[in-house]
Amino acid sequence: MNSLHFTAESSSNGVLERDFTVGDVPGVLWSPVSGAAGPAPLILMAHGGGNHRKHPAMSGRARLLVAGCGFHVAVIDAPGHGDRPRTAHDEAEVAALFAARAAGEPEGPIVVRYNDHLAQLAVPEYRALLDALQDLPEIGTGGLVGFWGINMGTAIGIPFVADEPRVSAAVFGQHWPDVLAEKAKQITIPIEFDLQWDDEHITREEGLALFDAFASQEKSLHVNSGRHKELPRFEADSAVRFFARHFARPTTQPA
Amino acid sequence: MNSLHFTAESSSNGVLERDFTVGDVPGVLWSPVSGAAGPAPLILMAHGGGNHRKHPAMSGRARLLVAGCGFHVAVIDAPGHGDRPRTAHDEAEVAALFAARAAGEPEGPIVVRYNDHLAQLAVPEYRALLDALQDLPEIGTGGLVGFWGINMGTAIGIPFVADEPRVSAAVFGQHWPDVLAEKAKQITIPIEFDLQWDDEHITREEGLALFDAFASQEKSLHVNSGRHKELPRFEADSAVRFFARHFARPTTQPA
Repeated sequence: MNSLHFTAESSSNGVLERDFTVGDVPGVLWSPVSGAAGPAPLILMAHGGGNHRKHPAMSGRARLLVAGCGFHVAVIDAPGHGDRPRTAHDEAEVAALFAARAAGEPEGPIVVRYNDHLAQLAVPEYRALLDALQDLPEIGTGGLVGFWGINMGTAIGIPFVADEPRVSAAVFGQHWPDVLAEKAKQITIPIEFDLQWDDEHITREEGLALFDAFASQEKSLHVNSGRHKELPRFEADSAVRFFARHFARPTTQPA
Repeated sequence: MNSLHFTAESSSNGVLERDFTVGDVPGVLWSPVSGAAGPAPLILMAHGGGNHRKHPAMSGRARLLVAGCGFHVAVIDAPGHGDRPRTAHDEAEVAALFAARAAGEPEGPIVVRYNDHLAQLAVPEYRALLDALQDLPEIGTGGLVGFWGINMGTAIGIPFVADEPRVSAAVFGQHWPDVLAEKAKQITIPIEFDLQWDDEHITREEGLALFDAFASQEKSLHVNSGRHKELPRFEADSAVRFFARHFARPTTQPA
């Protein structure tokens, strides 16, 4: 079992940022500088395709969760992403995606199969990450755990959460139902799910089918007008409130 | 043109509540006790079928908007509702609805036609209400105006907003698209729309069709698991944030 090795540390505006590795995988853990009174909830995040652990979408969401709610937030680079090596298979799939895009052909079939491949590698990495984080005294095994990943983060998150009883609330969205719908049927925890109404890659029927698949008694779907990359920033605020609601910590962030 | 006549006044927890009549129609206006520096936004609400202007759903939403955002909020009894007389036609339609319910037959056809009838009466009343409210010095004609109505409130609100250029943001939801979809196609202002995923009266396809009909460039759909009457209370908080976001006033309410 891999433990977590911190490699760098900084802080600003009340948020402590610690780089780490767990095995060969680089990650980052954001925490309140002041430390919580008891075990604080932990939100695991997964970044989108082509991005990395410190993409502004990740650090921005982390700041909302840490500064607003006092939570811990952790994310690791996905296989083939960020500071991790790309295999020949990664290179071939990325080339196939760019070729489809240039030719105006559907990206879905390539993204679905490549994300499935990456998820099979990433799920055990997330399990090891959670094990290692729960070994830290400031997190421990007693706190609540959430998961937040959109796009490729959903492709990784759904199979991870389906088999991970420690996660008790999750935010997903913007993915095709192929591969994932069967896993989503095993998920019963509260879910918030984002979908773009004018997504040029994922049809409405595909997006709704994945939302519908979750077995969760409590699930919310947030649809917004706009294309695939136009998910409104207020949905990040909404996701933070979703976690705050379920993990019973008021957020201090503005509306 | 009818002016507004105040008939009673009380206040609690910073919220001033004033009963009024406009013509023969009774209503209530909630405002900040302390008064705003400039013209504050006004939210017009419409209540659901079988309810009235002071139903807890109305006063609860008003409290969030007034105490949280400093807005004015007004609602009137719909025709045949609250303190207003019921006509023989009202009695017959209510009896038809109860009979359908008792027989386990679909309520939709009756509710759609009766709400359409009520909306034709209520739309000019809302227009007169807005005229009269804008004659008040503390509201005036310079402020922003929103509309918030679910169920029957949507049946009234969509035709009202479609022809009312003074309204610049609206929250609707939970209605059949019959009658309303054509009017919704004329609406271009930002919309938040609520839909219940397991509604026993309104199918998913019907709910999505009405959301889809709005011509608004910016529109959001909030779907939640649960039956018709199980709209989560956090959607009221979300609607308040929607108005606060568009009318540029921070809300102080908790998440």
